[in-house]
Amino acid sequence: MAITLYELAAANPAIRFSPYCWRTRLALAHKQLRVETLPWHFTDVEHLAFSGQGKVPVIVDGDRVVADSWAIAVYLEQTYPDRPSLFGGSGGQAHAAFVNAWADGVLQPGIARLIVADILQVLRPEDQGYFRQSRERAFGKTLEEVVADRERGVVEWRRGLTPVRLVLRRQPWLGGESPDYADYIVLGSLQWPRCSSAFRLLDDDDPVREWQARGLALFDGLGAQAPTV
Amino acid sequence: MAITLYELAAANPAIRFSPYCWRTRLALAHKQLRVETLPWHFTDVEHLAFSGQGKVPVIVDGDRVVADSWAIAVYLEQTYPDRPSLFGGSGGQAHAAFVNAWADGVLQPGIARLIVADILQVLRPEDQGYFRQSRERAFGKTLEEVVADRERGVVEWRRGLTPVRLVLRRQPWLGGESPDYADYIVLGSLQWPRCSSAFRLLDDDDPVREWQARGLALFDGLGAQAPTV
Repeated sequence: MAITLYELAAANPAIRFSPYCWRTRLALAHKQLRVETLPWHFTDVEHLAFSGQGKVPVIVDGDRVVADSWAIAVYLEQTYPDRPSLFGGSGGQAHAAFVNAWADGVLQPGIARLIVADILQVLRPEDQGYFRQSRERAFGKTLEEVVADRERGVVEWRRGLTPVRLVLRRQPWLGGESPDYADYIVLGSLQWPRCSSAFRLLDDDDPVREWQARGLALFDGLGAQAPTV
Repeated sequence: MAITLYELAAANPAIRFSPYCWRTRLALAHKQLRVETLPWHFTDVEHLAFSGQGKVPVIVDGDRVVADSWAIAVYLEQTYPDRPSLFGGSGGQAHAAFVNAWADGVLQPGIARLIVADILQVLRPEDQGYFRQSRERAFGKTLEEVVADRERGVVEWRRGLTPVRLVLRRQPWLGGESPDYADYIVLGSLQWPRCSSAFRLLDDDDPVREWQARGLALFDGLGAQAPTV
């Protein structure tokens, strides 16, 4: 039986742009598990009530319900140990927590400041009020003010990718010789702007782009073929 | 037979402040290997000629010579597989490369901008000219200009430690349930200012300090007992 994944969706429900849902989507593909995705929107509060919380990703695997992308990755690794490993051992899991924290705490807040006004545009009308209000409260300014200087902001954001570039000089994937959950964390972060915004984050000659292209091609082009705005 | 470690030293040769040498020192202790350290100074070029390059750390293990802290860690893990693991498996090593890259590319450049003028003061007079000239060329300004605004700069630098704080909410060490090379990378970076400067980098209530204190206490207080300025 396929695992069900509740996935954040745009007004066009084929557009799935949550960085956290992408981590889970790629992790499920890595584990060679069948998945059926269900679109979920920011204000579909009652649709997630069964999970005891209000955010995606949520997976339903038989009678198990797991929320939070990191918890899902750990669950999949423990529940399907005979499938390809997401972490490459206990140290791999412990250190992937650092990559996860860097993506959540550094990479993604920077992306938000570049594209948050574009995200608003892809949402259903009934989700836009919630999104604008909650994000403007967090930023302390309007979404349009947040992104006003993004041509300058993106230059600094690119500098923040230094750790990824340094690792890719040493090895082809963040996971070493082959991709693993560390790659899916960062690929997931980059699917967020890729699917929801026309704003270009990476320079053409950035080595991160070459790695991203290889990552998007994995699993029969799962990431590459995702609908975008 | 003990392994010999060439270690960057101050004018007072008991003061060892290189972040890279500290990574190696802690890795050797984790592997329960006996070590004899030899002080090395920036202009002792001929003393390292045998290693075919000009930087420390360098270890001599029998007839093997290994330079570069990352290469040394990988060498120790491969050569002494029956000793406690530095990485916790292949995924652990691949992902530790990310922690290493973050420390080298983000954490330490920030530290340099806070303490580079203090480092100058701890060097032998004959090393100071080389140090000032090479670092001022890299920064494009005098060392005194680099650190002039450090009371403001340290506030931003502290924000950069977000990934460490997020991981420590989840697990007691960067290595998970017990310390490993990921911890020694960041502990090593923090030994650099701790041993060479009186400038306080971390706030008293920063959770990173509590983790650092536990790390400094490891191996009979190897880090805690290190002489400082």
